[in-house]
Amino acid sequence: MITPQIPKGFRDFLPLKMIFRQKVIEVMTTVFETFGFEPVDTPCIEYAETLEGKYGEEGERLIYKFQDRGGRMVALRYDLTIPLCRIMSMYPEIVKPFKCYHIAPVWRADKPQKGRFREFYQCDIDIIGTDSVYADGELLIITYSVLKNLGFKNFLMRINNRKVLNGFALKEGIDKKDVLFFLRSVDKLDKIGPEGVWQELSKKGLFGKDSETRFIDLMSSDAGSNADRLGEMDKLVEGVPVGEEGIKELKIINETLTAHGVPEKYYQFDFTLARGLDYYTGPIFETVVKEPKIGSITGGGRYDNLIGLFSKKSFPATGTSFGLERIVTVMEELVSDKPNVAKTQVLITLFETGLMSMNLKLAKTLREAGIKTEVYFSPDKLKKQLTYAANRGIPFVIILGPDESNEGKVTLKNMDIGKQVTIPQSDMVRKIQENLSR
Amino acid sequence: MITPQIPKGFRDFLPLKMIFRQKVIEVMTTVFETFGFEPVDTPCIEYAETLEGKYGEEGERLIYKFQDRGGRMVALRYDLTIPLCRIMSMYPEIVKPFKCYHIAPVWRADKPQKGRFREFYQCDIDIIGTDSVYADGELLIITYSVLKNLGFKNFLMRINNRKVLNGFALKEGIDKKDVLFFLRSVDKLDKIGPEGVWQELSKKGLFGKDSETRFIDLMSSDAGSNADRLGEMDKLVEGVPVGEEGIKELKIINETLTAHGVPEKYYQFDFTLARGLDYYTGPIFETVVKEPKIGSITGGGRYDNLIGLFSKKSFPATGTSFGLERIVTVMEELVSDKPNVAKTQVLITLFETGLMSMNLKLAKTLREAGIKTEVYFSPDKLKKQLTYAANRGIPFVIILGPDESNEGKVTLKNMDIGKQVTIPQSDMVRKIQENLSR
Repeated sequence: MITPQIPKGFRDFLPLKMIFRQKVIEVMTTVFETFGFEPVDTPCIEYAETLEGKYGEEGERLIYKFQDRGGRMVALRYDLTIPLCRIMSMYPEIVKPFKCYHIAPVWRADKPQKGRFREFYQCDIDIIGTDSVYADGELLIITYSVLKNLGFKNFLMRINNRKVLNGFALKEGIDKKDVLFFLRSVDKLDKIGPEGVWQELSKKGLFGKDSETRFIDLMSSDAGSNADRLGEMDKLVEGVPVGEEGIKELKIINETLTAHGVPEKYYQFDFTLARGLDYYTGPIFETVVKEPKIGSITGGGRYDNLIGLFSKKSFPATGTSFGLERIVTVMEELVSDKPNVAKTQVLITLFETGLMSMNLKLAKTLREAGIKTEVYFSPDKLKKQLTYAANRGIPFVIILGPDESNEGKVTLKNMDIGKQVTIPQSDMVRKIQENLSR
Repeated sequence: MITPQIPKGFRDFLPLKMIFRQKVIEVMTTVFETFGFEPVDTPCIEYAETLEGKYGEEGERLIYKFQDRGGRMVALRYDLTIPLCRIMSMYPEIVKPFKCYHIAPVWRADKPQKGRFREFYQCDIDIIGTDSVYADGELLIITYSVLKNLGFKNFLMRINNRKVLNGFALKEGIDKKDVLFFLRSVDKLDKIGPEGVWQELSKKGLFGKDSETRFIDLMSSDAGSNADRLGEMDKLVEGVPVGEEGIKELKIINETLTAHGVPEKYYQFDFTLARGLDYYTGPIFETVVKEPKIGSITGGGRYDNLIGLFSKKSFPATGTSFGLERIVTVMEELVSDKPNVAKTQVLITLFETGLMSMNLKLAKTLREAGIKTEVYFSPDKLKKQLTYAANRGIPFVIILGPDESNEGKVTLKNMDIGKQVTIPQSDMVRKIQENLSR
């Protein structure tokens, strides 16, 4: 006998969990499609060389790789962005700008811990083939709409621009080769705090002792309206063209969110947001919730040079990713009005095998009226059949004995209140629909 | 630069293909849920030992295996039945009978050819914890309903029972150890023909020369009503209890299909159906189409002993699997009324950047009315924007110039007929909805 078990960091989803996940995905896809995004999918397995060298040193170690039958190294999909870049370079017939969504599992050989799994779903939206910052703004409108439609009440979309960070680094006299080090240090702010970032940067000699207070203040600033914050960021890059361009782009994002009526409390321009991945080139963004402590629930940004890794013709691109597991975790802990859970609505009990044909006909009538209906398969004691309905949470039971059958009637039992009525079979659908709509 | 490519036998799905697959899956899940089935999912990766020794010699060779970080052998999911059996033994809290559906990719290192891929989707429904043959009958009602709802007009559900085949083998004096050989030979009927099966069986000494005509006739019989066919099968196993039990079960299935009103032309009891897998114990079934030549599009049966491989407490079980790729292939070639393809319904063009805020507000109004709407991101020449709408197949375009904006109007262009009208913005939603419903 084989011990039934699954590898660590992997999960089974039984119906309750699964239905909840399906509902979250349905809310997302409805919003995505309302904004004109269309679905794509890619294989779970890619050639290893397609993924290698894209995710930084740490990411590289987490890729699941193995040898194919043909002796070539293949890898399990690590994220959805690189496969999308591959697609864009393989199929020139795709009409640009291309707006697509991709909801699929990815794999990382990470240490499993609370909220972190080795197999998890990403839900990505991307806009390829336009350098307009309105596209970045749209991704944020969609983020806002999805979270609102899921019932989130407290969340904050943090927004920055790599161009602003680059402009600042330039203005502070940081050498071009050290800018990535600077970005990666700032990205650790949440983990090591302003002093920690300062330590790293001054040790590397990127800032002098005289900048300490100013820099730590900068990393700690969390107040002010978005207009004020943009004004302050503007000063940090004044006179540096790339930085000023970055500010201009953030102002366009602000205009986009305002035009859509996104209240200011849901987003904040934040100079300290860096995002870990190397490939971002423009606006970057993520969404955080205060409780539970779970990191960001969405994240993304503009990556204008990434498709160029796969083809001579590159395309400007921007995208964002919703973390399904984290969103589900937050909803389970915090959001009160979870989406309704689909369930069987009626169970038809079986009094004796001779009545099964009659039951099947009643079931057919109910199903044709869109009522989710199960027939019980064995002529077990009625009590056992009712217990099954109760355990499953099925709200209505139809009981058909020989008397009811002869008289063209059924008994309808409401499991919630425990009452039952005997009614003509011709009233059955109407009566159940009335009860369900209450 | 990396050459963008994917391994052989794997596929990318661009929107048109993807939307079509989504629609097929949606039709399936709607039917499944109407019959009270609920979704489950399992990891794509299982411990190798969970899968090994279940799929026969040929299947065994096709399992993708590799070593995990911890040095344990893992494998990509090969089918959905074995993971379900593992689930049933791991979670005793699941209420039985358990009716579930599972739609997910599986992997087989098979030689890629037309309609056969290394990564493909299975759509399984299973009923665990009842030995009632009404459950098997229900799977066939669902098969019929799904295919009808997908627009299939010509298909045949072939139905047999392993108990009938076993009863026949017993009556013919075939040794118990040779029954599996007998079943596997009969399973090759479609490939090697009645004479081929006969060759194999007589070579093995399972039938004497005197049975040749009778046996070949038996393997070739394709006529008669289902009642007649059941009568003939009954004679083949007369006096052998297991065979007679098998016939009784097939009669219950016939009763079930009749009660649901499934016309007889859609199903046939067929003594020559054997199904390849070793683990079936009772009713077995598959669906075939005449054109295109693509093999069976669904297949399944009862497997009462399989869960016992994972736990002391076994459960009777029956299930069937819909082959998504084959169903999609048949639909693309044959079914005329494909499900509607979802698409963006309105494009709002951008005359000049200063009008973007106005466009965003119009887009918000349309989206809130449920109209799938895109805004164009760059103030390109109108002709370029209209070409984009035409290439994407977007049926309506909203044009907003400074005059329209000042007067609170928009121009609505119908891309199909090429005509445009200027209307008040307050009429926009109603006008588009009217046009879309035509």
